[in-house]
Amino acid sequence: MLSREENALLTQVGPGTPMGELMRRYWQPALLSRELPEPDCPPVRVRLLGERLVAFRDTQGRIGLIDEFCAHRGVSLFLGRNEDCGLRCVFHGWKYDAEGQCVDQMNEPVPFSSKVKMQAYPTVELGGLIWTYMGPPAKRPPEPQFEWTQAPDSHRYVSKTWEECNWLQALEGGIDTSHAPILHRALTNNTARAGIAPAAPFVRGKAATLEVDTTDYGYMYAGVRPLGEDQLYVRTYHYVMPFTQIRPAQVGGHGDEWRPHIAGHFWVPMDDENCMVYNWHYNYGLDAPPLTEEDRVERSAGRGPGEQLADFRKRRNRDNDWLIDRQVQKTETFSGIDGIHTQDHAVQESMGPIVDRSREHLGPADKAIIVARRLLLDAVRTVQEGGDPPGVAPSYYGLRAIEQVLPREVDWRAELGPQLYCQPALAR
Amino acid sequence: MLSREENALLTQVGPGTPMGELMRRYWQPALLSRELPEPDCPPVRVRLLGERLVAFRDTQGRIGLIDEFCAHRGVSLFLGRNEDCGLRCVFHGWKYDAEGQCVDQMNEPVPFSSKVKMQAYPTVELGGLIWTYMGPPAKRPPEPQFEWTQAPDSHRYVSKTWEECNWLQALEGGIDTSHAPILHRALTNNTARAGIAPAAPFVRGKAATLEVDTTDYGYMYAGVRPLGEDQLYVRTYHYVMPFTQIRPAQVGGHGDEWRPHIAGHFWVPMDDENCMVYNWHYNYGLDAPPLTEEDRVERSAGRGPGEQLADFRKRRNRDNDWLIDRQVQKTETFSGIDGIHTQDHAVQESMGPIVDRSREHLGPADKAIIVARRLLLDAVRTVQEGGDPPGVAPSYYGLRAIEQVLPREVDWRAELGPQLYCQPALAR
Amino acid sequence: MLSREENALLTQVGPGTPMGELMRRYWQPALLSRELPEPDCPPVRVRLLGERLVAFRDTQGRIGLIDEFCAHRGVSLFLGRNEDCGLRCVFHGWKYDAEGQCVDQMNEPVPFSSKVKMQAYPTVELGGLIWTYMGPPAKRPPEPQFEWTQAPDSHRYVSKTWEECNWLQALEGGIDTSHAPILHRALTNNTARAGIAPAAPFVRGKAATLEVDTTDYGYMYAGVRPLGEDQLYVRTYHYVMPFTQIRPAQVGGHGDEWRPHIAGHFWVPMDDENCMVYNWHYNYGLDAPPLTEEDRVERSAGRGPGEQLADFRKRRNRDNDWLIDRQVQKTETFSGIDGIHTQDHAVQESMGPIVDRSREHLGPADKAIIVARRLLLDAVRTVQEGGDPPGVAPSYYGLRAIEQVLPREVDWRAELGPQLYCQPALAR
Repeated sequence: MLSREENALLTQVGPGTPMGELMRRYWQPALLSRELPEPDCPPVRVRLLGERLVAFRDTQGRIGLIDEFCAHRGVSLFLGRNEDCGLRCVFHGWKYDAEGQCVDQMNEPVPFSSKVKMQAYPTVELGGLIWTYMGPPAKRPPEPQFEWTQAPDSHRYVSKTWEECNWLQALEGGIDTSHAPILHRALTNNTARAGIAPAAPFVRGKAATLEVDTTDYGYMYAGVRPLGEDQLYVRTYHYVMPFTQIRPAQVGGHGDEWRPHIAGHFWVPMDDENCMVYNWHYNYGLDAPPLTEEDRVERSAGRGPGEQLADFRKRRNRDNDWLIDRQVQKTETFSGIDGIHTQDHAVQESMGPIVDRSREHLGPADKAIIVARRLLLDAVRTVQEGGDPPGVAPSYYGLRAIEQVLPREVDWRAELGPQLYCQPALAR
Repeated sequence: MLSREENALLTQVGPGTPMGELMRRYWQPALLSRELPEPDCPPVRVRLLGERLVAFRDTQGRIGLIDEFCAHRGVSLFLGRNEDCGLRCVFHGWKYDAEGQCVDQMNEPVPFSSKVKMQAYPTVELGGLIWTYMGPPAKRPPEPQFEWTQAPDSHRYVSKTWEECNWLQALEGGIDTSHAPILHRALTNNTARAGIAPAAPFVRGKAATLEVDTTDYGYMYAGVRPLGEDQLYVRTYHYVMPFTQIRPAQVGGHGDEWRPHIAGHFWVPMDDENCMVYNWHYNYGLDAPPLTEEDRVERSAGRGPGEQLADFRKRRNRDNDWLIDRQVQKTETFSGIDGIHTQDHAVQESMGPIVDRSREHLGPADKAIIVARRLLLDAVRTVQEGGDPPGVAPSYYGLRAIEQVLPREVDWRAELGPQLYCQPALAR
Repeated sequence: MLSREENALLTQVGPGTPMGELMRRYWQPALLSRELPEPDCPPVRVRLLGERLVAFRDTQGRIGLIDEFCAHRGVSLFLGRNEDCGLRCVFHGWKYDAEGQCVDQMNEPVPFSSKVKMQAYPTVELGGLIWTYMGPPAKRPPEPQFEWTQAPDSHRYVSKTWEECNWLQALEGGIDTSHAPILHRALTNNTARAGIAPAAPFVRGKAATLEVDTTDYGYMYAGVRPLGEDQLYVRTYHYVMPFTQIRPAQVGGHGDEWRPHIAGHFWVPMDDENCMVYNWHYNYGLDAPPLTEEDRVERSAGRGPGEQLADFRKRRNRDNDWLIDRQVQKTETFSGIDGIHTQDHAVQESMGPIVDRSREHLGPADKAIIVARRLLLDAVRTVQEGGDPPGVAPSYYGLRAIEQVLPREVDWRAELGPQLYCQPALAR
C-alpha cells in the first residue's frame, strides 16, 4: 500500500517530474530496429516518457530521434520526407539531420538554418532495438548490454506490445512470480490453448515463498515452492532498475521437448497512462541451437498471426474485454483469455489507467513488489540529491535467470548462484 | 428553473454528495434477474450511483454485489471465476463470497483471508429484478414491493435500457404527461408505426391541466383534458420518491382490442451522466389474462428485435441522431423517430448529459416537475438533518394508475380514487 | 513567436472572450445555402464561435438561425418540425419563428408564448452562403459583398470542409504563400495527381520575398520570386480581417489550357478546436465563360467524389494520417497526400488542436503571418476600447488577386495595382 502522494510520485514520468528525472538516467528502448528497416524509410512516431518524438534512419543508416514537431511552425515531422541525410518537413521544407540540426530551409531567400536545432536524443542500436538516452549528457551510463543483446540474431527474438495502463502496474505484474501458476494455469493437461499445465512443477508446487536479495542493479529473487515431500521448485528472476525483468522461460513443448531459454520484458513508459512492453527471449550456452521460426511467432504469448494491430495494440484489448470466453474459462484455462501475455495485460489494464495503490492489501507473496517500490522511491531521492541510482552501472551485464527442481535439503542459493551470471568462458 | 447550485445538487449522486446520500436511503434496481441466469454464471459489471460494482450468483443461488476491484491489487473481478460459492480473482486467486468476505488466497503460503473483506451491498430479488440497498444499515427500508413485483411472472415483464444522460432529466420526461400526445403522436390513424393515434382521447383532448396531490410517498397526479363539450379524459400517475413512475398503459390494439395494463419506469443513476431505465408492465385484476409473447417484445416502445445492443444501449442513439427519418416526420409520426421510449430518450439525451436548468422556462404544464424537484430538495435537507425521506415507508405498496373518460361534471378524484390503490380482495 | 497569453488570446473565440468579441463584429458564414435547399426542409445544426445553433428555412423561405436548445426544457431543436412558418420542438410543441419568437405552446391550456423569445441572429443570403451577424446590433456592418458574391451562380462555386484545429493555424496556412510550391509540389511534370508541376513558375522561381502593404481592410501582399535571370513571378493575395483570404487561382489544365480564376477561403471558428473552411472560386471579367461541371467537382483540391463525409469532415483525416502514401511521397508528390487542400489541412491538423506559438521559429518568409497577428491583436484592443476594427467597412468590396510573370526591372505594384480591384466598368 502506498499513500496517494507516493502513488502519484511513482507513476508520473513526464519532463520535470521526480520519477521522470529518475527514468531519464537510464537507457530507454525507443522502438524496434525493424520499424526502421532501411535507410530513408518512412519516419515513425515515438511516445516516450510523456514526450512526442519522431525516429528516422537516414541515408547513411544513422538513427535520428528528435522532437515530433518542426521547430518552424509545429507541423508533425511524421509527415516528413526522409531523404538525403535528413528529415524534411513537408510544409516549408525545413530539414533536420540525425542530430536535430536544421540544415535547409526551402522557403527562405536567405536561410538561417544554422541557428535552428531541434531537441534530439542520442541512440544506440543493440539487440534489435533502438535505445535512447534522454537525461543529462554528463550522466550518460554505459550501453545497455545484456547477454541477449550480444547473442546473434539467430538466437534471439524481440517484439513489443502497447499496454494501455501505467508502466508501474505492468512492471509489478511482471516481477510477481506468485500469479503465474494461477492466472496462466491451464485447467487440463491436454488443452491446445496456451497455459501452464497442472502437471508442471510450477502448478503442482505449493504457494511460493519469496526470497529477495537486493543488489547494486536492483534485486535477484526466487519463488521457492515446496514440491511433494522432498523437493523444491525454485524459479529465479532479476529485477534491473527501473523497468527490466529477466526470467527463465521454456519454448517448444508441443510434440517436442521443452527447451530452457531466458526471457524478459522492459515496461517502458509512453506516458502516464500507457506503456510499451518489449518482449525478448534467447537461447543461451555454447551448444544452443538457433531459434526456430515457430519460436519467433510467440503464439503462446498471444502475439500470433493477426493478434497485433499495426500500432502494436492488441486485438484482444480492454474495449472488447480481451475477448474473454466464459466457456473456455470453465473448462480449459483459468482466465478464459487467450495468450499468456494477453492475460497479464488484461488483469493489469482492468485495474484502470493508474491503479489506486492506497486501497490495496498486500501480503508476504507481494514481497518483490514491495521491495521494488522502495528501491524506486529511494532512487528518486538519490537522484534529487545529486547521486547515481542503481542499475546505471554495468553490473547487470550477463545476468541469467534459471529455474530448477532441487532436493529440499539443498541450499538453492549455493546451487543456483553460479548459474545466475553468464560465465564468459561458457557464453558463445 | 433552478439555480446552478440547485441543479448541481439534484444531479450529482456519487458517494458523499447530498443527493447521493438521499439516493442511498432507497432500494435500487441493480440489474435484471435474467442477467444472472443460473448459479455460477459469469459475473456482470454494475454501475450504480457513481460506484463500480460486480454482481454474481453463487453456486447456491445467492447474489453477491461487491466492489468491482479486488481488494488485493485492484484487478477487475468482472474477469473473475464464479465457482464453489464465491467469485475468484484470476490474478492471484483471491476469492470472495456473496457477502464480500475473502475466503481464499491461492498465492499466500499462510493465507490471511479472514482479515480481508470487500465492500458488499445487500440484495433482494423481487419482480425479476435484483435490488440493492447502499445506505446506512440501520436505515434500511422495507423491501420494495409493488403490485407488479407480486404478480406472477406470467403477468408481468421487465426490461432495461441505458439512457445516456443524467437521471433527473430522464425522470422529468417520465413524470410529464403533457408531452405524451405531442412527442408520441402519430400523424394519421393508419400508420403502422408506433404512436398515439389522432383519434385517441389522449390526442383529441385539449392541453392538460395538471393536478398534483402530494402524498407520503411522493405524489399522485392527473392530467385532466377537456374532451369535446361534455367529457374529461383523466389520466393518473404516481411519482414514488425518488425515481419511480407508475402510469396507465394499454397493450395490443393491432387488429385486437386495447387492454388496460399498468406500467412504469425506474430511472436509476449509473453515474452523473448516465442512467439505467427499468421498464415494467403487468396485467392486473382477478381475471387478468397472462401477457402474450408479443406483449413482451415491447415493439412499440422501441425495444423490438435488434433494437437493443448487448450492453443495453440503444441501436438508435445520440451518435446516429436516433436514426430520425425526416420523411416519416413529415407524414407519419410527430418525431420521425421509431419507438415510443426511443422518442423519450432522444429528446432527453438531446439536452446534453446534464441539462442546464437555469436557462429553462417552465409553465403550469410543468407542475409535476416543479413539485418533484421541490420534494427532492426538501428530502435532501431532511436526510441531512437526520430524518427519513418520503418513499421509504411502505405506503406506496399497491399503487395503481388508471385512465378514464368521464362526464365533465363528475368529480374525478371521487370517481377514480378507489381504483388508484390495489384492493387486496380484488388482487390476484 | 507569441507568448502563451497572446496565443490564448488569439485562439479563444467563445462568448465573452476578447477575440470572440472582435469576431462578433464581422459577418460570419454560417452554412451553405444548399444545406437548406427548400422551404420547410429539415433544420441543420450550426456550431459557430463556440455557440450551438440551429438553422432552418421556413415556409416562406426566411432563414432562422437560433439557439439549438428549446427555451422551455432544453431539447435540441435539430429534432424539430419545420412547418407552417416556424420550427416546432417535438417535445411539447413549442414553436419559434425565424426571429426566435415563440408563437405556439401545444402543451399549455393558456399559452404564454408571447413572453418567450430565443436568441436569434440576423442572416443574409449572398453568394450561395447564409451569413450571420452575432455582435451588437448597433455595430452591424454592411453586408459582406465580394466580387464573387455578386457573380451569377453560373460563374462561381462555393463549398465547405471541416478542419479539425483552431481557426488561426488554418488561416495562417492560407495567408502563407511560401509553403505552396513546397507542400503542394508535384515531383514530376506528368503525374496524374494534383500538384504544382516543377515546370510552373511557382516552383521554378526562387524562394519568395514577401511584401506586405497594410490597408484599411487588412493587407495586400505579394510573394515575389526571382525567375531565371531577368524575370519575376509575382503572386498577390489579400487578407481581409479577420479570416478571409483572396488568391489567384487556375482551373483546367488537364488537356486544356489553364484559365485564371480568383479563389479564396474563409476560416470560420466553430469552437476553439475546430473551424469550418469555406472554399470559393469564380471566373471574372466581361467575357468570362461559366464554370464547367468539372470546375465544380474540386477534384484537385481533394473534395472529389467520396472525399467528403456527410458532416463535411474529410475522408482523409487525422485519424487515418490523411492516408499518406509513402511510395507516392517518394516518387510523385512532395507530401504523399492526395488533394491540395487536404495537404493544407494535414499539416495544420498535425500541429495539434491549438498549436503552441511560444515554441516556433519564424523568419522573413513568415512576414504575412506576423503582420496578421499584429493586426488581430491591435483590433482586439481597438474593440475593447470601443472602436471599430479594420475590415468592417466596405473597402474590401471588389478586391481581386492576380499573379503574373514580369520583367525584373518592372515595378510590380505599378503594373499589377490597377488589376487588384474590380473596375465597375469591366465587371460583369
